[in-house]
Amino acid sequence: MTNSSHIDVQPRSCTVHAPATVANLVCGFDVLGMCLEAPYDLMSIKLLDERKVIMNKVEGFDLPTDPAQNTAGAPLLAMLEEVNQPIGFEVSIQKHIKPGSGIGSSAASAAGAVVAANHLLGNIFSKEDMVRFAMIGEKVASGVKHADNIAPCIYGGITLIRSIFPLDIVEIHVPELHITVVHPQIEVRTADARQILRKEVLLKDAIRQWGNIGGLVAGFMKNDYGLIGRSLEDVIIEPVRSMLIPGFDEVKQKCKQAGALGGGISGSGPSIFMLSKDEGTAKEIERVMKDIYNRIGLAQHTYVTTVNLTGVHVLDSQ
Amino acid sequence: MTNSSHIDVQPRSCTVHAPATVANLVCGFDVLGMCLEAPYDLMSIKLLDERKVIMNKVEGFDLPTDPAQNTAGAPLLAMLEEVNQPIGFEVSIQKHIKPGSGIGSSAASAAGAVVAANHLLGNIFSKEDMVRFAMIGEKVASGVKHADNIAPCIYGGITLIRSIFPLDIVEIHVPELHITVVHPQIEVRTADARQILRKEVLLKDAIRQWGNIGGLVAGFMKNDYGLIGRSLEDVIIEPVRSMLIPGFDEVKQKCKQAGALGGGISGSGPSIFMLSKDEGTAKEIERVMKDIYNRIGLAQHTYVTTVNLTGVHVLDSQ
Repeated sequence: MTNSSHIDVQPRSCTVHAPATVANLVCGFDVLGMCLEAPYDLMSIKLLDERKVIMNKVEGFDLPTDPAQNTAGAPLLAMLEEVNQPIGFEVSIQKHIKPGSGIGSSAASAAGAVVAANHLLGNIFSKEDMVRFAMIGEKVASGVKHADNIAPCIYGGITLIRSIFPLDIVEIHVPELHITVVHPQIEVRTADARQILRKEVLLKDAIRQWGNIGGLVAGFMKNDYGLIGRSLEDVIIEPVRSMLIPGFDEVKQKCKQAGALGGGISGSGPSIFMLSKDEGTAKEIERVMKDIYNRIGLAQHTYVTTVNLTGVHVLDSQ
Repeated sequence: MTNSSHIDVQPRSCTVHAPATVANLVCGFDVLGMCLEAPYDLMSIKLLDERKVIMNKVEGFDLPTDPAQNTAGAPLLAMLEEVNQPIGFEVSIQKHIKPGSGIGSSAASAAGAVVAANHLLGNIFSKEDMVRFAMIGEKVASGVKHADNIAPCIYGGITLIRSIFPLDIVEIHVPELHITVVHPQIEVRTADARQILRKEVLLKDAIRQWGNIGGLVAGFMKNDYGLIGRSLEDVIIEPVRSMLIPGFDEVKQKCKQAGALGGGISGSGPSIFMLSKDEGTAKEIERVMKDIYNRIGLAQHTYVTTVNLTGVHVLDSQ
C-alpha cells in the first residue's frame, strides 16, 4: 500500500456508468431533471499516488485535457483540495452522450467522475456533497453552476432543486414513464441558449409557470398521467429557445397527436424529449420524430428509454 | 309543488357552513390555497318561485344588497341564467369572516351561496362548475376572477390551481397541520394589494419561486415538514405586500423562533398565518402574535385551527 493508506481506500480503480439526463422537464427551468437509462457514458478512474488529475483523451471528441478546463477534471481537483492527501486520479471516458446534445453530457462526465472518485475514497462524501463538486464541472462547461442535470444524474429518478444556494434537492416519486429523445445533429451551446433569455418575465407568465410546476410535481407523485401531460407547458423559455431548433413545433404537435403525454426541449436543446405511458407509444413517437427530421433532411439520433432510478453507479472496481 | 317541479328539487331551503381560506400559501401566488376549520360563515338560502335573487342585509357589515354587486348574489344570478327556470334564491348570511381580512371572506360568501343553491337544485353542477360560478363573486369583490380561495373553499384541503383558463384544479394531499392566524385590525383591499405588484419579475426570482412551489407541493405530499418549512419562502410578492402590514417582519421572525414551520401573508393580507406541526406550538404562536400586536397597540383577532378537509358543507335542509 501507499502513503495514502490512512484513508480507508480499498479499490485502486473502478468503472462507472454515467447516465444522460433531461433538465427542466418543460416547465421546471433550472429546477427539475430526470435521469435516463440510455444513453450513458462509461468512465474508468485510477487512483494515483500523487496529487494530480490526468484526463486521458476522449476518443472521437475534442474535449480539453487540461483538468482545470475539463468538466470531469475540475470537480476532481476540488475534491483533492478538500481531502488534502497525496493522491490523484487518472480518468478515461468512453463517451456516448454527445457534448452539446442537451441531454446532460457535461453532467454525466462531472457526476461520473465524482461518484467514481468518491468510491475510491471509501465513500466519504454524501450525495449532496457530490452534487456540489460536480456543479463545478457545469461551471466549466457553461459558465453557470447549475444542478438540474447533476442532481438527477447522481440521485437517479426525478429531482427538484428547491434551492441552489443553499443546495436543497428533493427526490420526486417517479411513475412508469417511457421517454423518447431525438437529437437532431445541430449544436446549441448551453451558454448561447442562456444568452437569448430575457432577464425579466411577466408576472402573469410566471404564475402560469408555477401552476404548471406544482401540477407536474403533483402529477408525478399521484401517478396522474393526465395532469402530467397538461402540466408539460412552458410559456417562458420554450417560446424563445425553440426557435433555435428546426422542426420543433411540428415534432411537438405530431408526437402529442401520436399519443405522447407531452414534452419539449431537453435542457437547452437541441434534443427534444417526449414522455409516454407505454413503450409502444414511445416507439411510435420515435418513428414520428425520425420521419420529420428525415423529411427536413437533418441527421438525427433517437433513444427510446425509461427513467433510471439509480443514477451514476459503479460497475466494477479493483 | 311549483312549476319548477320538473327539476328534481326536494328541499326548499338549507343552511351551509362556509369556511375561511388562506390563499397563496406564501410561495404560490394565485395558485395555492388551504381551507380552514375556523372561522366560518353560516348561510341560509331559500328557494323562490320567481327568477330573482334577494340578498338580505348582513348584520354588522355594510355589504351591497343589490345581488349583481354582491359577492354571493352575482354567482347566483349566473346560476339562474344557466338553469333557465322560474326559480330564485333568498340569501341570509351570518358573517363571521370579516371582509378585507385576507382569509377569504368574499370567497366564503360566493362559494357558500353556490354550494347551497346547487344543493337546492339537486346537485346538478360539479365542483368545478361551482368554482366557475363562485369566481364571478370574486370578480365583483376584487375586479379579478381568481380561484385560489374559491377552490379550497369548495374542495376543502389544499388545492393547486394549475390553470385558470382552462380551469384545472389539483387536490394536494394534506399532512397534519395546525394553523395560527392573526388578523390585525387594519384594512388592506385586495384590489390595492394587487395594484402595488410589479407587472414584471426577474427570471432569477421566478426560478427561486418555482423551486419553492415544487418543494411545497412535494413537502405536503411527502409529509415532509422540514421541506414544507424551507419552501415557505416568497421572494416576489411578500417583499412588496408586507410593507402594508405593520409588524409583519417581527411576527414572522418570532413565530419561526417559537417553532412555526413558516408562514406569511394570508391572501392579500392583512392577516398573517403560520403553520405548525402540533397544536401546542400553534397556541404558543398565537401568544407570540398577540404580544407583538398588543405592544404595537393594534387590536387583533386570532384563530388557532386545522385544515378543513371538506370545504363548504350543508348543515341542514328542509
